[in-house]
Amino acid sequence: MDLWIIICAMNVPERYPSKLLEDAVQAIGSLPGVGKRSALRLALHLLRQPNENVHHFAESIVRLRDEAKYCKVCQMISDDDVCSICSDNSRDKRTICVVENVRDVMSIENTGQYHGVYHVLGGIISPIAGVGPSDLTISELVERVREMTSSAADIPSEVEVILALSGDVEGETTSFYIYRQISGYGVRVSSLARGLGFGDDLEYADELTLGRSITGRQPFKP
Amino acid sequence: MDLWIIICAMNVPERYPSKLLEDAVQAIGSLPGVGKRSALRLALHLLRQPNENVHHFAESIVRLRDEAKYCKVCQMISDDDVCSICSDNSRDKRTICVVENVRDVMSIENTGQYHGVYHVLGGIISPIAGVGPSDLTISELVERVREMTSSAADIPSEVEVILALSGDVEGETTSFYIYRQISGYGVRVSSLARGLGFGDDLEYADELTLGRSITGRQPFKP
Repeated sequence: MDLWIIICAMNVPERYPSKLLEDAVQAIGSLPGVGKRSALRLALHLLRQPNENVHHFAESIVRLRDEAKYCKVCQMISDDDVCSICSDNSRDKRTICVVENVRDVMSIENTGQYHGVYHVLGGIISPIAGVGPSDLTISELVERVREMTSSAADIPSEVEVILALSGDVEGETTSFYIYRQISGYGVRVSSLARGLGFGDDLEYADELTLGRSITGRQPFKP
Repeated sequence: MDLWIIICAMNVPERYPSKLLEDAVQAIGSLPGVGKRSALRLALHLLRQPNENVHHFAESIVRLRDEAKYCKVCQMISDDDVCSICSDNSRDKRTICVVENVRDVMSIENTGQYHGVYHVLGGIISPIAGVGPSDLTISELVERVREMTSSAADIPSEVEVILALSGDVEGETTSFYIYRQISGYGVRVSSLARGLGFGDDLEYADELTLGRSITGRQPFKP
């Protein structure tokens, strides 16, 4: 009898005391990684905030969607036609770092160690997720490399394309695909160094990473 | 040297390629439990969604904040002046379940076991969080009980107030405070049964819970 009540209770659809609340919870719950319970918690939080805060919240999201552009050169999200990195004359335009998305750009920028420009693919080749080369900005990258190498100003061997994609199967596949597309132009193609992270323990490193650390060893700089 | 670079990199403030993106990330990151990284992930997700979805998302949140009301009777969030539960004639108006917030109402409603009405406190007495009795709808509850018991229709002893607050110190304090306020009206005051949860193992139950399970034991119903 008790078990039956529990099974019945589990099958009852969530009842909201207000249609407005239900709509908001459904909207927030449509975000990736936000469950129904979190969505309800967030909706009730917003309900308790000052009116102007909530309006500002909604407005900033709508403005992002409506007004954000993609840089004509590197395809990164940007407020203008050409992003702040591509229009910065102090950056080395002959070094192009190919990344999956804008988050990777921000991660690399935060290191303060890179002074070239970027190319944002907007994803990674993944047959499982149904993402093919044509869904990404690979053709734009090839065109960009072609233009650079065909202009008199740049010697192909002085142009470097860094494939800064993740180290999983999809990343390696995408890297290999891009390499085949651009290697004909005579540019240098490099990839990120793989090895032990700073502070990593040899004992707990996986074999692949440790193996790459050994084969890719570097002269010791004291 | 390496360590110095890392310390420098850690102090660099996050650089966004777009002011629009930064604003949206800051707005989303202001939600409780959403960090900067998740906020960026969500902002980029919204950027990839169809325009009308994002507008609908923002609109439903603004509408919730602008148009949601609180039920005049039970203080629950509602689309109308009186909520659907309080205006439902099949519900027992002489049993009032006092809860902390609307989430608790939904949890109890989902059990399908309760047919009375509610009173939503809008929080719980917590000196640490700076929430006192006057921040809650306790005076509205007292007034509600007073009106019910003073009207000719209801015999005080037929009115029941269920204190369905959480079992922690704040919950117990709030329950005790409310009990002192309403006990003078001669209504019955009860609290939720405490004991082992369905499927709980005796071995792993804490002493307080198991103790309450024993003292509050019930006749066996086969």
